[in-house]
Amino acid sequence: MDLTEKVIAFRKRIIERSPLVHHITNYVVMNVTANVTLAMGASPVMAHAREEVAEMSALASALVINIGTLSRTWIEAMYLACEAARRKGIPIVVDPVGAGATKYRTEVSRHLLDCYVPSVVRGNSSEIRALIEEGSTTKGVDSIHTVDEVKSEAVNLAQTKKIVVAITGVEDFITDGEEHYCVRNGHELMARVTGTGCSATSVIAAFLAVTQDRSEYAIATAAGLAYYGLAAEYAARDHQAPGSFGIALLDWLYRLNDTHLREGIRLEQVQS
Amino acid sequence: MDLTEKVIAFRKRIIERSPLVHHITNYVVMNVTANVTLAMGASPVMAHAREEVAEMSALASALVINIGTLSRTWIEAMYLACEAARRKGIPIVVDPVGAGATKYRTEVSRHLLDCYVPSVVRGNSSEIRALIEEGSTTKGVDSIHTVDEVKSEAVNLAQTKKIVVAITGVEDFITDGEEHYCVRNGHELMARVTGTGCSATSVIAAFLAVTQDRSEYAIATAAGLAYYGLAAEYAARDHQAPGSFGIALLDWLYRLNDTHLREGIRLEQVQS
Amino acid sequence: MDLTEKVIAFRKRIIERSPLVHHITNYVVMNVTANVTLAMGASPVMAHAREEVAEMSALASALVINIGTLSRTWIEAMYLACEAARRKGIPIVVDPVGAGATKYRTEVSRHLLDCYVPSVVRGNSSEIRALIEEGSTTKGVDSIHTVDEVKSEAVNLAQTKKIVVAITGVEDFITDGEEHYCVRNGHELMARVTGTGCSATSVIAAFLAVTQDRSEYAIATAAGLAYYGLAAEYAARDHQAPGSFGIALLDWLYRLNDTHLREGIRLEQVQS
Repeated sequence: MDLTEKVIAFRKRIIERSPLVHHITNYVVMNVTANVTLAMGASPVMAHAREEVAEMSALASALVINIGTLSRTWIEAMYLACEAARRKGIPIVVDPVGAGATKYRTEVSRHLLDCYVPSVVRGNSSEIRALIEEGSTTKGVDSIHTVDEVKSEAVNLAQTKKIVVAITGVEDFITDGEEHYCVRNGHELMARVTGTGCSATSVIAAFLAVTQDRSEYAIATAAGLAYYGLAAEYAARDHQAPGSFGIALLDWLYRLNDTHLREGIRLEQVQS
Repeated sequence: MDLTEKVIAFRKRIIERSPLVHHITNYVVMNVTANVTLAMGASPVMAHAREEVAEMSALASALVINIGTLSRTWIEAMYLACEAARRKGIPIVVDPVGAGATKYRTEVSRHLLDCYVPSVVRGNSSEIRALIEEGSTTKGVDSIHTVDEVKSEAVNLAQTKKIVVAITGVEDFITDGEEHYCVRNGHELMARVTGTGCSATSVIAAFLAVTQDRSEYAIATAAGLAYYGLAAEYAARDHQAPGSFGIALLDWLYRLNDTHLREGIRLEQVQS
Repeated sequence: MDLTEKVIAFRKRIIERSPLVHHITNYVVMNVTANVTLAMGASPVMAHAREEVAEMSALASALVINIGTLSRTWIEAMYLACEAARRKGIPIVVDPVGAGATKYRTEVSRHLLDCYVPSVVRGNSSEIRALIEEGSTTKGVDSIHTVDEVKSEAVNLAQTKKIVVAITGVEDFITDGEEHYCVRNGHELMARVTGTGCSATSVIAAFLAVTQDRSEYAIATAAGLAYYGLAAEYAARDHQAPGSFGIALLDWLYRLNDTHLREGIRLEQVQS
C-alpha cells in the first residue's frame, strides 16, 4: 500500500475506535495535548497518582510518557505506568523533553529507555543526541543540532534498543533500525507555539494505538508526524502568527480529509 | 418567574457581584476553567496548598472540587477546603472526573459525597453511575452510558444525600430529589474540546455563588448549564472545528445578552 | 535615546538572542506564559524539581518566580533557583500572585524579597501593598486598590530593597526608587483573561534578559509593559471578547513592528 494510503487508513481507524491514550505528561502542555488527542478522534486521559496509574494504563490503548516537568513522585508513577503498559502489551511513547539540558532529565530519559523499552522515543535532535552521547547539551527544551547530525546515531539507537526513534525538526526522520522514513510536512511557526513537540508525541500515540502489531510502529509514527505536519501547513495558510496558528492547528487536525492527505502528505521511505 | 428569566437574573447578579470562586481542580483544565469563570463575570482563584486552602475558601463565594488529576496531598487539601466551605456555608460543587475508571477516583468521589456533602455533584452518566453502583465503569474520562439510563438513580442519590445531582450529556438532567430539570442546550463539538465538562462545573459554581439559599441550588445549576449550552450553540454557528470553537465558546460566555437568552434557552422542569 | 526607541532596541535584541527564560510558575498560566515568551522571540523553559532547578537557572538569561499555585516543595525549588540565578548574576522577576489573600502567599512573597532580592517584583496594587503593609488584603488574585494608592509605598520599597517595583493596573507604575515610569498602554479586556498579569511578568523577564546591566532594569521593565500593553490594544481592535482577544494578544506580541511601536507606545518618565 502507498504510504499516503496508510496515513488515511490509520486516521480512519482512530476515528472508528476512538482509542484511549493515557498521558503522564508535563503541566505546560496537558491542555493542548488533550485537545490534540481529541481533535484526532482519540480519547485522552491524564492520571499520575501512583495509586491509579497502573489501572489507568491497563484501560488504555497507548501510553505517553513526557518528562517536561519532572519530579520524584511523577517519575515513580511513570515507571509504574510503563510496567502496566508492558504487561498489557500496549505501545509506549517517550518524549524526553529537555534531555541534555539537565543531568536529571538526561538520566531519567536514559533510565526509561534502558529499563522500560518504549515502542517509540520522539525528540528534537539535541534531545535524541543526549540519549546517546555523554555531555551532549540542549538549550532548555530547544534544539541546537540539526536532524542530519543525529541520523546515524538514531539508527544505531533504534537497532540496539529495538525501538523506533523519531527526530523531529525542519524535516522529521523516523527509524526502527531497519526501515527509515522522512517526513517533509510541517511549518516553521510550530517553533513559536509551546507544546508542538509534545503534541506530535500525542499524535504518534494515537496512531500507534490503532496498529496491528509492532511491525507497524515505524510507519505509524511516520504517518502520525506527516498528518500532524500537514495540519500545520493548512493552519499556516490563513494564520501567520502563533496564537491563531495554534488554534487553527487544532482545527485542521480535526478537519483534514482524504483529499487533503492525498494532495499534501510528503512522507517517503529513505536510505538512512 | 419564568425559568429563562431566572437564568437572566442569575447572570446579572454574577456580573454585579463578581463572586470569588475557589477551585481545587485538575492540571489539564485549570487555565480554561479560570477563563470560563472570568468570561462569566466571576473571579476565579486556584489554590491547593494545605497551608492556605481553608483561608482561601473562607474568602470565596463558592468552592469547586474537581478530581481530574488526583494525588494524596491534593485530596487532603480538598477535604480541608470542603470543611472551611461548610463552616462558611458557601456552596461546594464536586466534579468526579473519571469516577468509575479507577478505584482511586471512585473511592475519593464517594468519600467526598459521604463526608463533605457537597451542594452539587456534576458528572457524565458513567461518572454519576459510578458514585452509586459497585462495578460500574467509565472509559477514561468519557461516558459509556446515556443520561436516561442513570436518571432514576440520580434522583435516589439526590434524595438520600440531600444534594443536587447534575448529569450532563446530549441533554442534561438536574435533580435535587424533588424538582427535576432538563436542559436541551449544548452542541456535539463540546465532546471534542477538553475540559468542557469541568468548565460546566465552574459555570455552575458561578451561578450557585449568587443564590439566596439552598432552595435555589437546583434551579441555579440548571440555569448555569443552560447558559453554558447556549453559549456553545452560538460558538458552533461560526466555528465547526474544535480549536476555534473552544475560543468562541469563551467569547459567547462573555457575550450572551438577554435577547440571546430569551430566544435560545431550552430549560424546563420535568417529571423525573 | 527616546524611550520608544529603547523599547524597539530591547525587542530587537530579544529576537536576535532568543534568551532562555526559566520559569517556576503556577499551573494555571504555564501554557500561556510559555506561549507569550515564544511570541516575544524568547525561549521559555519550565522546571521545578529540586534536583534540576539550579542547573536550569544557570543555563538561563532570566528567572521568573511566580507563586500563583504554591506548595512546600515548589517553594524550596524557588529558593534553590533564586540562589543559582544570583550566583550567575541573571535577573530574577518575582510575581507575588495573591499576596494579601492568604498569610501563606504574603509570607512567601516577603521571604522572597527579604532573602533573595529579586531584580523586579511585579504585581497589582493589592499584591504590592501586601508586601509592605501588615493586614492589607487581596480579593483572591484580583486587586481591590488603585495604582495611585500604592505609588509612594512602592517607591519606598524600591529604595529600601534596591529593586524595581512594578504595579500594573489601568496605568502601570514602575520605579527603582530613583527613576519612575508610567505606562498608559493596555486594555480593559486583559482583566477578563486569566494569566495576563503573569504574562506581563514573563514579558518583563524577556526584556530584562537582554539588558546590559542593573542600571537598565527599570527602563527594561517599563519597556516590556508598554510593549505588552500595546499588543493588547491591537488585539482588542478586532476582538472584543476574551477568548479571541487572548489569542490575538499572542498574535500581536509576535507581530508588533517598529511602526506600530512608534505610533502606539505611551511610556514616559514621571515624578513619582
